[in-house]
Amino acid sequence: MKNPSRPPDCVLLFSGGIDSTTLLWDLRNQGRHPHLLSFDYGQRHRVELKAARTIARITSCPNDTVALPTWLFQGSSQTSDEISVPHGHYAAESMKLTVVPNRNMVMLSLAGALALSLKCKDIFYAAHSGDHAIYPDCRPEFVEILRRAFLMASWSELMLNAPYIMWPKKMIVQQGASLDVPYELTYSCYEGAELHCGKCGTCTERREAFELAGIPDPTKYTA
Amino acid sequence: MKNPSRPPDCVLLFSGGIDSTTLLWDLRNQGRHPHLLSFDYGQRHRVELKAARTIARITSCPNDTVALPTWLFQGSSQTSDEISVPHGHYAAESMKLTVVPNRNMVMLSLAGALALSLKCKDIFYAAHSGDHAIYPDCRPEFVEILRRAFLMASWSELMLNAPYIMWPKKMIVQQGASLDVPYELTYSCYEGAELHCGKCGTCTERREAFELAGIPDPTKYTA
Repeated sequence: MKNPSRPPDCVLLFSGGIDSTTLLWDLRNQGRHPHLLSFDYGQRHRVELKAARTIARITSCPNDTVALPTWLFQGSSQTSDEISVPHGHYAAESMKLTVVPNRNMVMLSLAGALALSLKCKDIFYAAHSGDHAIYPDCRPEFVEILRRAFLMASWSELMLNAPYIMWPKKMIVQQGASLDVPYELTYSCYEGAELHCGKCGTCTERREAFELAGIPDPTKYTA
Repeated sequence: MKNPSRPPDCVLLFSGGIDSTTLLWDLRNQGRHPHLLSFDYGQRHRVELKAARTIARITSCPNDTVALPTWLFQGSSQTSDEISVPHGHYAAESMKLTVVPNRNMVMLSLAGALALSLKCKDIFYAAHSGDHAIYPDCRPEFVEILRRAFLMASWSELMLNAPYIMWPKKMIVQQGASLDVPYELTYSCYEGAELHCGKCGTCTERREAFELAGIPDPTKYTA
């Protein structure tokens, strides 16, 4: 571990999935030292937190998980047992069932609080263009508005950065492959079992990204 | 209790202080039925949560408190024991020590999540013009930006309302007096003792508001 006591210089929203893990490698490649922030809101796919912790450990990044009560986030397949996870293509209308109410604004605002507490000036967020159709809070207009909100709430101290916001996911995978990201450690599946189901929206998107990128997919899928 | 099972039709950020308690009476006077949302972030003045619960009980409003870890909100006199609460006038530069990093964006975004979970279309926030100088996240520009962020993140389902945003606090007290708000049950003091200290910024502001409003102040101050 090189310079373990070096303080973090930014906060990265970190799910342990492909996008935020690639951004972590990207930031480290640029000499940045992020504090990783994850969330346990009772999500069906909370096994992602185990992936996040493993990746934090091997990168020696400081990391924390904030626990939030599930009752704040009802009406999504990811927080309500009685709503099944939709299968099929990620951009399909049915995937709106997976939207967790206002989740990303909540996560980003807490990342902002932590960044100010740590005296860091940057928040990083790995939203990408594949998310735009279904997730309103992954769109560039939303990021731009929140960027202005952070500047205003912090006397211009805090910047929200979303460097992949216009990238398709295949570009993220290509970028990550060039940085040797250990994708076998990342987790995406909305069903939340140990192995990726291979059928839900995020598994479909994950598979497609590797295929389109021309990069071998190291993921073990159940089906 | 009249119609106890009536579902809430809005979410009100509720601290148990003068401003949000007046807004609660105002909303009930308009026939609204708010769900009250409070926050325990380890604040020095967490005795305010007792006031909030008492007021929730006598109004028969549904209410919840979200616990958030204090380490997310460092560098303020309200969350760090080693920083003393500044005494003096509320609008003084020294009061910036009382700003809790990004707190209001965090609270509002969680209120947004709850509102969507409850299928309510309105969030209410009792920021007022006396807060503008010191608290960047109480200013009308900030409220306007977050209003747009909520509309965007919710497919235009969710509206952020801050009806007192241009009011001085004395107008809030006058409005509350006309609605018979039991101000003796509300709590404001940043020092966080059972009795109001009478010297901190919020006590100074509280006293001044009653004086300027020409309304008797029912508060017991230590000094």
